Amino acid sequence: MARPAPDPARPTLGIIAGGGSVPPAVARAAVAAGRPVVVMAIAGEADSTVQAFPHHWVRWGEIGRLFDLLVREKVGEIVICGAVNRPDFTSIRVDLGAVLSLPKILSLMVGGDDTVLKNVVRFFEDRGYAVTGAHAIAPELVAAAGVLGRHAPDDAARLDVARGFEAARALGGLDVGQASIAVGGRVVALEGIEGTDEMLKRVADLRARGRLKAPARSGVLVKAAKPQQDLRVDMPTIGPRTVEAAVAAGLGGIAVEAGRVMIVDRAATVAAADAARLFLAGVDGAAP
Amino acid sequence: MARPAPDPARPTLGIIAGGGSVPPAVARAAVAAGRPVVVMAIAGEADSTVQAFPHHWVRWGEIGRLFDLLVREKVGEIVICGAVNRPDFTSIRVDLGAVLSLPKILSLMVGGDDTVLKNVVRFFEDRGYAVTGAHAIAPELVAAAGVLGRHAPDDAARLDVARGFEAARALGGLDVGQASIAVGGRVVALEGIEGTDEMLKRVADLRARGRLKAPARSGVLVKAAKPQQDLRVDMPTIGPRTVEAAVAAGLGGIAVEAGRVMIVDRAATVAAADAARLFLAGVDGAAP
Repeated sequence: MARPAPDPARPTLGIIAGGGSVPPAVARAAVAAGRPVVVMAIAGEADSTVQAFPHHWVRWGEIGRLFDLLVREKVGEIVICGAVNRPDFTSIRVDLGAVLSLPKILSLMVGGDDTVLKNVVRFFEDRGYAVTGAHAIAPELVAAAGVLGRHAPDDAARLDVARGFEAARALGGLDVGQASIAVGGRVVALEGIEGTDEMLKRVADLRARGRLKAPARSGVLVKAAKPQQDLRVDMPTIGPRTVEAAVAAGLGGIAVEAGRVMIVDRAATVAAADAARLFLAGVDGAAP
Repeated sequence: MARPAPDPARPTLGIIAGGGSVPPAVARAAVAAGRPVVVMAIAGEADSTVQAFPHHWVRWGEIGRLFDLLVREKVGEIVICGAVNRPDFTSIRVDLGAVLSLPKILSLMVGGDDTVLKNVVRFFEDRGYAVTGAHAIAPELVAAAGVLGRHAPDDAARLDVARGFEAARALGGLDVGQASIAVGGRVVALEGIEGTDEMLKRVADLRARGRLKAPARSGVLVKAAKPQQDLRVDMPTIGPRTVEAAVAAGLGGIAVEAGRVMIVDRAATVAAADAARLFLAGVDGAAP
């Protein structure tokens, strides 16, 4: 693995990489900024494209080995990013480091998603690592305010955007979902633990069964961060699949909280929205 | 039809009856209180048991005939109750009264459920009728505070009850759903237009697929009225079917806002909860 010589003033950035395109995007941005990086790729999760960067494959449960590697690679700052499935603990083989950390690790898994992630961050911070958000390294991942594609919301859509953000805000303090769908000026669906894609599927079903009557291409998916959300490790995301599901739900567009929602595969996401004549907008209005 | 002679001091109570057991329960309570009643049974909706009381069958669209009957029967006060499917307007044959009221009727149907019902109430009030809630005539329909069946919530369940009410409150101002499900101290599902039964089914699915891991008989369905809800015509309800769906979702109990949620078929509902070892409780805590 060819890699830049470590610069003591700029410690190596360790990227703990789950699946998808965000980890390679972060690695690319760091390298472009002249920053040494090493990817700790989670086996079974991380995309093979991370192999273009200095990397190690690490299995769930190899906590001891992970921390050894972080020391050996002189990592001072880490980014935790990419999609992971909550591991099935029954199938994990743990190393000594994991055994020693087990009570701590089990306590990480109790509570809502916010609590779990807060604990994961603290777990690394307690061991001397600064935890940085993917968006701090690669700010282009985050939605800016304004229309992002070729289509813009009309007045009816703007009302749905406002209603959707109201609902997202109302839920914000509760560590519940972070998305809602408004159609015809009315909130029709709220995200719980099922996630955004399944909420969209629900609305597609309600529409197919005539339980929700609305013109084609009307209604808006709104996605926002919770006020207390740790954006370093848990920024809400949308991507091409979100657009597909929004199209299937008959919606007219997607509005995300500007500066606090990540767009994964932006080019593909915007292209999919443009092709389906959906608007895609970053909106500042999520704060009260 | 044998009926008591109208008492000018206590005008006849008109019961505009949708489906289910609430309209006959209201009629029974009124008759027991010595009050003359007439049921305006909506054809295709009202249960045949309303025929035990003075009644007329009225079709959707027969607004003119309905108001004629209300006058003829000397109705001064009405109760609108029972389940109705939102009518399919394409299949309705309207009479002259409906045609004359059509712009008004169409405007009734715009907006969230709250708005629609508020407009329906105003429609009758504008024509000189007092609109009363079913629970004012038959207060035994409403959940009181306290444990209603044989089982009581434990500490974990009480935490879920508190979390569920928090979520219901947060949604209250938005004319969205009025129910939520909390499991293990965490809100996992929120009701949109899909309704309580479908939300429960969703949680059953999440559990079956391992997306929600929790011990058997844990978690709580919470149902509350929205702060602005017009309880005269739109009181939230639970019934035996709700208990069945809560059992299928693996929950440990059901908590409803005391004084503001109706229990349809109370004996059957409590029996079903007892048989499945679910608690059923009325809770005052829904107000902030």
